[in-house]
Amino acid sequence: MSAPVVTALDWVPDGAKGLVRDLRVRWALEEVGQPYDVRLLRFGTHKEGTHRARQPFGQVPTYEEDGLVLFESGAIVLHVAERHPGLLPEEPKARARAIEWLFAALNSVETPITERFYAAVIECNESWADARLPMVDDRVRGRLGELSQRLSDADWLDGDFSVGDLMMVSVLRPLRRSGIVDEFANLGAYVDRGEARPAFQRALQAQLANFTGTAPEGWTMPGKAPAP
Amino acid sequence: MSAPVVTALDWVPDGAKGLVRDLRVRWALEEVGQPYDVRLLRFGTHKEGTHRARQPFGQVPTYEEDGLVLFESGAIVLHVAERHPGLLPEEPKARARAIEWLFAALNSVETPITERFYAAVIECNESWADARLPMVDDRVRGRLGELSQRLSDADWLDGDFSVGDLMMVSVLRPLRRSGIVDEFANLGAYVDRGEARPAFQRALQAQLANFTGTAPEGWTMPGKAPAP
Repeated sequence: MSAPVVTALDWVPDGAKGLVRDLRVRWALEEVGQPYDVRLLRFGTHKEGTHRARQPFGQVPTYEEDGLVLFESGAIVLHVAERHPGLLPEEPKARARAIEWLFAALNSVETPITERFYAAVIECNESWADARLPMVDDRVRGRLGELSQRLSDADWLDGDFSVGDLMMVSVLRPLRRSGIVDEFANLGAYVDRGEARPAFQRALQAQLANFTGTAPEGWTMPGKAPAP
Repeated sequence: MSAPVVTALDWVPDGAKGLVRDLRVRWALEEVGQPYDVRLLRFGTHKEGTHRARQPFGQVPTYEEDGLVLFESGAIVLHVAERHPGLLPEEPKARARAIEWLFAALNSVETPITERFYAAVIECNESWADARLPMVDDRVRGRLGELSQRLSDADWLDGDFSVGDLMMVSVLRPLRRSGIVDEFANLGAYVDRGEARPAFQRALQAQLANFTGTAPEGWTMPGKAPAP
């Protein structure tokens, strides 16, 4: 079996470096010790036909393995976790709960975080931006408060580190610079704990090392760049 | 083994009837022929401690089965699909792709649809609401255009009806009244095809029949009710 192939971009704006979603897949592969190859896409070509055949929404990552082509970071990470020990408990009920947290990260927690990204970055120059952002922040804060309460003083969401924690840490990371994550001390420590894992660090360095390209000519940031 | 128990609400505003997320789980159970029991929650009590112990975000549905308590409609539907034939292909690559569409529905397609719900309903009385909604509509339209292109003239997203289609139809349904789904004729027909399934109809009727409660005293709709 040849190594799986993950697609990644050769350039993104500075604010997105270390946050692009191929990182989730790299992290999962590093956790289970599965080497992989990278298909590096020139930024912009991910919206074109060749890549759209792999990924209908023109995004990264995709994952290729022995003729299987997968997209959606959640689906890929689950696929990796199902095929290698290390990211899912063997006991069936605990396994189901780890997968529950994977879905919770992507649907219940990432949804308001994505909305906040649009509010804070993409729509930042609209006349209503400053009035609206605090409302969106409050929605994010409400959801994180619930998550914080459930996590309580545990290290991970349900027993040992699992695919659910991998994804929850991943969806919280881009929000960190807003300060909202660290309003909840246990969530800040939780993200720190995830980022301290050697597998995460290897994945992060590998993503950063792949940004060997330059901005396409004439490219401008929609809205403004997020604060560093 | 006793029948699994699904939580549902005894009342929701008219615009949400037939759209609450326990429908997804009921539909999956109907597709595989698994009878279930319903634990009906008085509207409002789903935000209280007893239910929060089952569901940290105070939402429905949850699923209980032989001591396992699960939340997140995506996780529950996948769990049902893994334990019963009918919603996942047996061939491993096709199985992975069906799960990919389950995640795509919840993370790539539902995310902008949820944002639009907030824009059109919850924030509708804000001064910027009318100016902002068309921008959000365009984001939804962009994503649906990509989905429409991938679906093309197929009946279902990848081969036979699967857990991916069940979820994609489910996330598109609440958007239908906006008119955006039907800008893409194949997506409108796709949702119709999903809703025409006998298992969906049984699930829908069962949800509707459970709305036996009344609005809590003093309850008012945030924003305004969506158009009927």
